[in-house]
Amino acid sequence: MQLTIEKAAVLKEVPMEVKSFGKIFTDYMFVMDYTEGEGWHDAKITPYSAVPFDPAACVLHYGQGIFEGLKAYKNSDGTIRLFRPRANFERLNRSAKRVCMPEVDVDFVMKALIELIKLEARWVPSAPDTSLYIRPFMVASEAYLGVRAAQQYKFFIILSPSGPYYAKGLEPVDIIVEDYYVRAVRGGLGEAKTLANYAASLQAGEEAKLKGYSQVLWLDGVEKKYIEEVGTMNIMFKIDGKVITPPLTGTILPGITRDSVIQMLKHMNIPVEEYRLSIDEVVKSYEAGKLEEIFGTGTAAVISPVGKLVYQDKEMTIDHYAEDSVSMRLYKELTGIQTGKIADPFGWVTIVE
Amino acid sequence: MQLTIEKAAVLKEVPMEVKSFGKIFTDYMFVMDYTEGEGWHDAKITPYSAVPFDPAACVLHYGQGIFEGLKAYKNSDGTIRLFRPRANFERLNRSAKRVCMPEVDVDFVMKALIELIKLEARWVPSAPDTSLYIRPFMVASEAYLGVRAAQQYKFFIILSPSGPYYAKGLEPVDIIVEDYYVRAVRGGLGEAKTLANYAASLQAGEEAKLKGYSQVLWLDGVEKKYIEEVGTMNIMFKIDGKVITPPLTGTILPGITRDSVIQMLKHMNIPVEEYRLSIDEVVKSYEAGKLEEIFGTGTAAVISPVGKLVYQDKEMTIDHYAEDSVSMRLYKELTGIQTGKIADPFGWVTIVE
Repeated sequence: MQLTIEKAAVLKEVPMEVKSFGKIFTDYMFVMDYTEGEGWHDAKITPYSAVPFDPAACVLHYGQGIFEGLKAYKNSDGTIRLFRPRANFERLNRSAKRVCMPEVDVDFVMKALIELIKLEARWVPSAPDTSLYIRPFMVASEAYLGVRAAQQYKFFIILSPSGPYYAKGLEPVDIIVEDYYVRAVRGGLGEAKTLANYAASLQAGEEAKLKGYSQVLWLDGVEKKYIEEVGTMNIMFKIDGKVITPPLTGTILPGITRDSVIQMLKHMNIPVEEYRLSIDEVVKSYEAGKLEEIFGTGTAAVISPVGKLVYQDKEMTIDHYAEDSVSMRLYKELTGIQTGKIADPFGWVTIVE
Repeated sequence: MQLTIEKAAVLKEVPMEVKSFGKIFTDYMFVMDYTEGEGWHDAKITPYSAVPFDPAACVLHYGQGIFEGLKAYKNSDGTIRLFRPRANFERLNRSAKRVCMPEVDVDFVMKALIELIKLEARWVPSAPDTSLYIRPFMVASEAYLGVRAAQQYKFFIILSPSGPYYAKGLEPVDIIVEDYYVRAVRGGLGEAKTLANYAASLQAGEEAKLKGYSQVLWLDGVEKKYIEEVGTMNIMFKIDGKVITPPLTGTILPGITRDSVIQMLKHMNIPVEEYRLSIDEVVKSYEAGKLEEIFGTGTAAVISPVGKLVYQDKEMTIDHYAEDSVSMRLYKELTGIQTGKIADPFGWVTIVE
């Protein structure tokens, strides 16, 4: 398929300093269309602008859509790096299957992404802890109100310069264990990066914020007993010297940062295990003085240490994440590789140009 | 709030005969906007046309949206009837709360709907079993990629002339009990008419169709044991003279047809009970020769008798729905009231104009 580039008449001004996330968008976006029987067509890089959707477009009624999130980093010499971008498009294709959507050609969308990033190089910020957030997404565009998989789709890549996640260094977050609302259950959509899972998380998130917590920790939908994830990140517990994280059994997002952290822990010779960890085991380990660290892993914050975890009337506090804590070491290693400050022994980085 | 009407320059031709569902749309739609701090504004009836959405609009990423479905019927003297329209807007407001969206003023949207239907009266078909399908829906339109409730929304009402659901009289459908995929679980979104629930149903629906079934019957998400609903309709079982349907415990849609049928059964002095019916109880009642009828209730088909229900290796067949079956009686009564052929002792009908 050919990739057309439509130039913008006027370019926006790039902000001097980026502080926000997901509010400012660059000059261009990538878009292509899918029609059943014809496949993907009309791939183009085009000025970022509003897109006309028929009011009957399936995505507006039945939420048939999926997305991805990754980042481009610019270092002091101007080199732009992408972190494991193929893994995102491969996961997009797995999500697509779960909600009956067409797959994309990973090589082609990689090419499109690289072209787009090259064109938008001036939008990749280089200040410490900033990045260009990349949002590929696909939605059902067919104008039809019957409940079935749509026959027309649109795939986009949009870009948004993103400020530092933390104002000053790693700041531990407070999280509450959700014991009423459920995000996903086995047999459901939990492992797909699909719109529905985020809609399902909104109310619990709003209620947690009102109580002063940044996010909720989800439990499994059947027994409300086993740790799952934190909505926008996977979660890991360091207990008695060992890092434990829930396995990929279908209800949690197979995070790319999660996978990178597991590989890195093995590389660091830090024991890591994937098993179904119950919230009771976490509480017991805390009471026995063996709960050493809790941290989230995700594209937004990379590593997000948890300062306080609250479950019903139990409040578990982890006072301090020292320089030699696993959380801090992982954060430095991962962000170091992402920004090119340290060598990449894993082959995770794609240099643009 | 004022309601503006923008007239179309050219009107479409109304098709002579309507056979499809949800593919043809009328000349006009109702639309209004919501902005946090300002409330609903810019309410207008405007020509039906594509709507520009920012590519970062929340609904395209996090599926924050809800909808309704109801019908307008025209009888032989040209009178147009709506069936329990306020109940739809009241349910819309309950769905809104569950996914952190603003409520609408029921009196105002009722007024807007009536104005829209009056303007589009020529689009309401009058052939037997046809209707004008009405689709109110609300989606998050704010251009922001953070995961939280949006601060801008759009509410629409679109209209689509709808052909007969059955080609020739009530035709029983074949349904398979889904024992792998799960639609909803307690603590989830099941009872809200939100986009996510339909996305969650697509794959099971596609797989059922491949096996020759029209739809799936969902079981509860925790034990996979209790009957829930059929995705686009609620379900009722007539066992040993009594009609049984699952109660509204949060995981199934509180159907307006379901509620109407329960009221009508009581009016007919037919015993009706809402309780958690297990699939095992259904199988046992079938084996004992006591499973007399199974039928779905919903806006699309009104009453949809089930001819065959398959659960794992059990095949339950109900050969014949006689004229005096509860399914047939309910279908005639309900469609009779909807179309004005018989009196409406319940006060369900709103006559337009």
